[in-house]
Amino acid sequence: MDISPRKLRAAYRSGSFRPSDVAAHVLSRLNGADQSGVWISTASPGNVMAAARALDARIGEIDKLPLYGLVFSVKDCIDVAGEQTTSACPEFAYVANETSPVVADAVSAGAIYVGKTNMDQFATGLVGVRSPYGIARNPHNPDYIPGGSSSGAAVSVATGTSSFAFGTDTGGSGRVPASYCGVTGFKPAPGAFSQRGMVYACRSFDTISLYTRDPSDGYDVYRVLARRDPADSFSPLECAGWTEQASPARPLRIATPRLDQLKFFGNPETERLFGDALHRLRRLDLPVVAVDFSPFTSINDLMFFGPFLAERDVSIGAFLDAHPDAGVKIVRDIVLGSRKFSAADAYRASYAVKEVQRGLRAFWDAHDALVVPTVGTVLRIQDVARDPLTANFNNGYYTNYANPLGLAAIAVPNAMTGAGVPYGVTFLAPAGRERLLADLARAFTDSAVGH
Amino acid sequence: MDISPRKLRAAYRSGSFRPSDVAAHVLSRLNGADQSGVWISTASPGNVMAAARALDARIGEIDKLPLYGLVFSVKDCIDVAGEQTTSACPEFAYVANETSPVVADAVSAGAIYVGKTNMDQFATGLVGVRSPYGIARNPHNPDYIPGGSSSGAAVSVATGTSSFAFGTDTGGSGRVPASYCGVTGFKPAPGAFSQRGMVYACRSFDTISLYTRDPSDGYDVYRVLARRDPADSFSPLECAGWTEQASPARPLRIATPRLDQLKFFGNPETERLFGDALHRLRRLDLPVVAVDFSPFTSINDLMFFGPFLAERDVSIGAFLDAHPDAGVKIVRDIVLGSRKFSAADAYRASYAVKEVQRGLRAFWDAHDALVVPTVGTVLRIQDVARDPLTANFNNGYYTNYANPLGLAAIAVPNAMTGAGVPYGVTFLAPAGRERLLADLARAFTDSAVGH
Repeated sequence: MDISPRKLRAAYRSGSFRPSDVAAHVLSRLNGADQSGVWISTASPGNVMAAARALDARIGEIDKLPLYGLVFSVKDCIDVAGEQTTSACPEFAYVANETSPVVADAVSAGAIYVGKTNMDQFATGLVGVRSPYGIARNPHNPDYIPGGSSSGAAVSVATGTSSFAFGTDTGGSGRVPASYCGVTGFKPAPGAFSQRGMVYACRSFDTISLYTRDPSDGYDVYRVLARRDPADSFSPLECAGWTEQASPARPLRIATPRLDQLKFFGNPETERLFGDALHRLRRLDLPVVAVDFSPFTSINDLMFFGPFLAERDVSIGAFLDAHPDAGVKIVRDIVLGSRKFSAADAYRASYAVKEVQRGLRAFWDAHDALVVPTVGTVLRIQDVARDPLTANFNNGYYTNYANPLGLAAIAVPNAMTGAGVPYGVTFLAPAGRERLLADLARAFTDSAVGH
Repeated sequence: MDISPRKLRAAYRSGSFRPSDVAAHVLSRLNGADQSGVWISTASPGNVMAAARALDARIGEIDKLPLYGLVFSVKDCIDVAGEQTTSACPEFAYVANETSPVVADAVSAGAIYVGKTNMDQFATGLVGVRSPYGIARNPHNPDYIPGGSSSGAAVSVATGTSSFAFGTDTGGSGRVPASYCGVTGFKPAPGAFSQRGMVYACRSFDTISLYTRDPSDGYDVYRVLARRDPADSFSPLECAGWTEQASPARPLRIATPRLDQLKFFGNPETERLFGDALHRLRRLDLPVVAVDFSPFTSINDLMFFGPFLAERDVSIGAFLDAHPDAGVKIVRDIVLGSRKFSAADAYRASYAVKEVQRGLRAFWDAHDALVVPTVGTVLRIQDVARDPLTANFNNGYYTNYANPLGLAAIAVPNAMTGAGVPYGVTFLAPAGRERLLADLARAFTDSAVGH
C-alpha cells in the first residue's frame, strides 16, 4: 500500500481506501522487522482507529482537509498533548500538555498521528546512533547508519509507515537522514513553522522539518502548515522574504561548490555519483556553475565546535546537571563542553553569521539555488563508532550553515551506492524560494534512470 | 546667532547669512568658556572655512542640499576620514581612513563638520564624567553632570556651536544628555542609520543619534540621513516596520508607566515636574493612560550588569588587554567584568529580549507612543562621584530597554528645576512612527510656558 500523500489522496477520492483501512494497515506494521529502532512510543491503536473512523465519516469534507487521512509520525523532541516527549533521553521524559502548533495544524487538516520517532538524543548529532532506544534500522542496508538526528522520522517514511514525518533541523537533521534513507527531507527556513512545543537544540534557528518520499508532497504539506505564530517569540514579522516568489520565466541559475571545495572524505564512489547528478541537471537544461563555497562553510565550526552549542546548554544543561547519570555520554560531553564559550564568543559568532549573510546577498541575487551533496560520504555504523566526532562533523559539511543563514533546503535521492545505500543531493535557497526548490527537486528526481 | 537648522536655512534663503559667516562665527566660539570639556578635537579652521566658502558659491543649489550650511559636531567614537577617533581614550586613538556613511551623507547634503566631541569613554556610561578629556560643562549649572555618554554632542547644540550634533545611543546616550542640557535627542530605531565607521558599544543595537534644539529639526535631519546601507551587515532588509506610518486621524493613544513603577530616586521635584508634563499633554487633548511598565524595565539589567556588556568586550577588550594602563578605571572594570558571562548567558538574554518584544506587540497595537521621564532625577557631579555605578544605572531606568526592543525615541525639554537644570521627557515608539514621535514632541515643547 503506497501511503504517500498525493497517491493516498487520489485513493481516498476514488473510494479505493478509507482512512481506517490505512490506519489499520500502518498499525499492523509498527512491530515489523523494518521498524527496528524507529519508534520511541506509538499512539494507542484505539485512538488511531477512532481518529481514522472519524475521518472516514468526513470524506465529504476532503476538499477542506488538505491532509485528509494522511498518517504521520513525530520526532520525539516535538510535543503531542498527552504523549511523552523524551528527546531520546528516558530520564528527561515528560507528558506534554499541549501539542506543537505545527502538529496540531496537521491534525486539524485531517492527518492522523501514529507515534513518536527515535533520534539522536537532544537532536545533538547527524548520525542516528546516539540514542538509548537503539538505532533506527537503515531500510536499505542495516550496516549503515540511518543518518540523524531525525533518524526514525526518515525511516518511517522510507518504510511506508508514515505518509509524512515531522523531523527537526538545526545543523542538518532534516536532510542527512533523507540521504541515508532515500527519501525527501524538506527543511523550511527558520521561522516558517512555529517553534513552540519542542525541545530546543539551537532555539535561534531550529526548525521543524518534513520527510516525505516525493519532493512535491513535502512542499504540499509545507504549504498547509507554514504560518506565523503570534505566540512564538521567534516567529518573524511579516517581511518581504517570506512572500513566496514565482519561479522566474528565464532559465534557472544553479550554483554548486567549486571542485576543490567539494569534500567526499576519500570516497571516489560518492564523488562520481555527485558528478552524475550535475550531469543530470545539465541534461535537464539546468546548467550548474561552480562557485566559491567557502562563505557557507566558514560558519560550520560554530555548530558542533563553537558557541552555538551553548544554546543546547540553555535548553538542557540544567537537566544534565540535575541528572549526572542521564544522557548519552557523547551528547552530554558536547553540550556541557559548550560552557567554555563566553558571551563575547556568542556575540562574535552572531556578527560572523550576519557578515556572511550580507556577503551572500549578491550571490543570491545572481543564483536561484545552490546544489550540494547532502553528505560527503556514506558511513557504516562501525565507521561512526571508530571516530564519532569526526564522522558527525563530516556529515554536516554540506548542511551546518543553512539554518544560521536563514536558508530553506530540500534533500532528495540521487543514486544508490554499490553497497545499496542511497546517496542524495540537496537544493538550497533563501526563504521565499521554496516552490522553486521543490520544482527543481521534482525535476531532478523525475529524471532518475528507471524512474 | 541662532544656527538651528530651520532658522539657519531661512536665513540662507533670505540672504541674511552665508555659510562662511556662520562657520567663522562658530570657529570664533570653540574656545569659549562654555565649550569647556566639549571638544576632543576640532577641524582645521582652514578646512572649515574652505568647505563653507564652497557652499557660499552653491547657494543656487540649496533646494538640492537639504542640510545646506548647517554646522555639525561628531561624537568621537564616529569616524571622520583624516581625523582622529579616540572614543575618549587617547591610547586608543587612530586616524580614520573612511568617514561614517551617516556623516558622509550629511556632508554631501551640504553640512559643515567642525569637530569631535567628548563622551563617556567607549560610550560606556550615562553620566558624561568618565573621560580623560574632562567633563563637558553643563550649560545651565556647572555643578551638574551634562549626562552621557554623548555629553559633548548635547552641549555643542545647547551652546550654539553646532546646528546639529551626531551622538550615539546604546543604553540611553542619545537621550540622557538631552535632558541635562535642555535640547532634543532623536534616537532612531537601530538599523535606520548605518553602523559602519564607529567604535561599537553593543553592535547588536547601537545607533548613531542626533542632537538638535528643536524636535522638528531632529526629525528633518533624520529623514535626510536614514537609509539602508548594503555594506553594513546589521542594516535591516526592507521590512514593513521600516515604512514611515502616517499619523492616525483619531486621537493619539499615549501610555505612561503606572505611578508605582515611576522612579524619581527620592527627588520630589522631578516627580512633580513629570506630573506637570502629563498635565500639559492632557491640556493638549493628548490623554495619557497609565500602563504596566515592567516588561520594558525587565531587560534593563542586561545593559550594564548583564551579558550585553560582553559586546563591549568584543569591541574593545583586546585593546584593553594590550594596554593595561589605558582606560578610565570604571569603564575598564565594567567591560572586562563582562568576561564572567557565558555564551549561554548571552543566548538567554537574546531569548528574554525576543519574548518581551513579542509580549509588547499587543501593547504597540493599542498605544501610539510611550512617554516617560528621560531620567528619574538630576545628578550633580559630586553625586556621581559618590556612587558611580548606581548613579549610572539610575540614569538608565527609562532608557536602557529602548534599543534592544527596536524602539525609536525622542527626548525633549520639559521644565527647569529650582537649581536651574533642565529636566526632560522622552517619547518612544516602534520603528515607523518617527514622524508621530517628532510631532508629539513638537506639540509638547510648543506648549511650554513662555514658549
